[in-house]
Amino acid sequence: MSRLNQQIQFILEIDKLKSVLRQTMLLTGERRENTAEHSWHIAMIAVTLAEYSNQPIDVAHVVKMLLIHDIVEIDAGDTFGYDVVGYEDKAAREQAAAARIFGLLPPDQRDEYQAIWQEFEARQTAEAKFANVADRLMPVMHNFHTEGNAWQRHGITKSQVIQRIKPMADGSEALWQFTETLINEAVEKGYLAADNHEPNQGVIS
Amino acid sequence: MSRLNQQIQFILEIDKLKSVLRQTMLLTGERRENTAEHSWHIAMIAVTLAEYSNQPIDVAHVVKMLLIHDIVEIDAGDTFGYDVVGYEDKAAREQAAAARIFGLLPPDQRDEYQAIWQEFEARQTAEAKFANVADRLMPVMHNFHTEGNAWQRHGITKSQVIQRIKPMADGSEALWQFTETLINEAVEKGYLAADNHEPNQGVIS
Repeated sequence: MSRLNQQIQFILEIDKLKSVLRQTMLLTGERRENTAEHSWHIAMIAVTLAEYSNQPIDVAHVVKMLLIHDIVEIDAGDTFGYDVVGYEDKAAREQAAAARIFGLLPPDQRDEYQAIWQEFEARQTAEAKFANVADRLMPVMHNFHTEGNAWQRHGITKSQVIQRIKPMADGSEALWQFTETLINEAVEKGYLAADNHEPNQGVIS
Repeated sequence: MSRLNQQIQFILEIDKLKSVLRQTMLLTGERRENTAEHSWHIAMIAVTLAEYSNQPIDVAHVVKMLLIHDIVEIDAGDTFGYDVVGYEDKAAREQAAAARIFGLLPPDQRDEYQAIWQEFEARQTAEAKFANVADRLMPVMHNFHTEGNAWQRHGITKSQVIQRIKPMADGSEALWQFTETLINEAVEKGYLAADNHEPNQGVIS
């Protein structure tokens, strides 16, 4: 197969990302979001909010990472951020997916996309840290503006959300603080449950 | 309103692009494509097929252009590439949309996104020419692989498709040739109508 034909096969294959559903609802509440449109949205977040990165970043590389990083979900599915069981074999499922899907490309591009995906997952470079900020910010905003829809369907509590998003601080202190404020407001408004195991203040035990 | 709050309002607003439907069907045929997921897909095309540009290009700028260029459709709707009446006031509708939606951003970003959108529409720079290649290639592939679904629903003929996509040659001779071959094959397979007004070969008139 010619180089161009390999690339076209990849481009046709990734159309399937439009059929992978996430837990978050659109802001209109009309339906669940799919991973392709989510990838577009967080790429726009990276472009628009790049100035809040803790460190200088190559924004173009962040964008490329965000466009590519969820393609493995075509085979591996979207693992909900709070799915403990799903996370146990997430890495193995996604490794196999990356091998198959990026493997449709010519070897140089296969290796490049594989490396970009791994860079995102490893969260070591400044670009990967900021890409993870964009990826974690949006679900909180979607939940906040749909009155906690996905949080409530899955019985998620504040401490779980904080645990999930606190790596944001490595990429952007400003956006972490913004998001933390939003989470506190979500608890106040009753969109997100406070934790049962929070100490009963004022009670001597 | 703080700078960050303005940027967040913009990010929330563009969620609506996920509800703008295009005429093309997903490759699975399950539903029509929306503009947000289309924007992601053509950004991936630009990244993956950049080597076929006629001229050297800044791929990152092409990607940014593709992510941004259809945001005006939130207000202006998607104008089908073959909608003659829709094209009459397309520019005016999109100008108003750009003013409102990009106007949510701080002035520096408003002006930047407005300029990027206009660059795409003007098709003068090497980046805009290649961005248009990505934008026009994908609908042909979607139609070809759904047996001409949107073409047939709208009674589109070969000469209309050729007319619509021939600016591709300005951005990429190789991808234009690939697409032209696909169109000829679509006619052979009966996915796309040949034109009624083609001369009857062999008949002396």
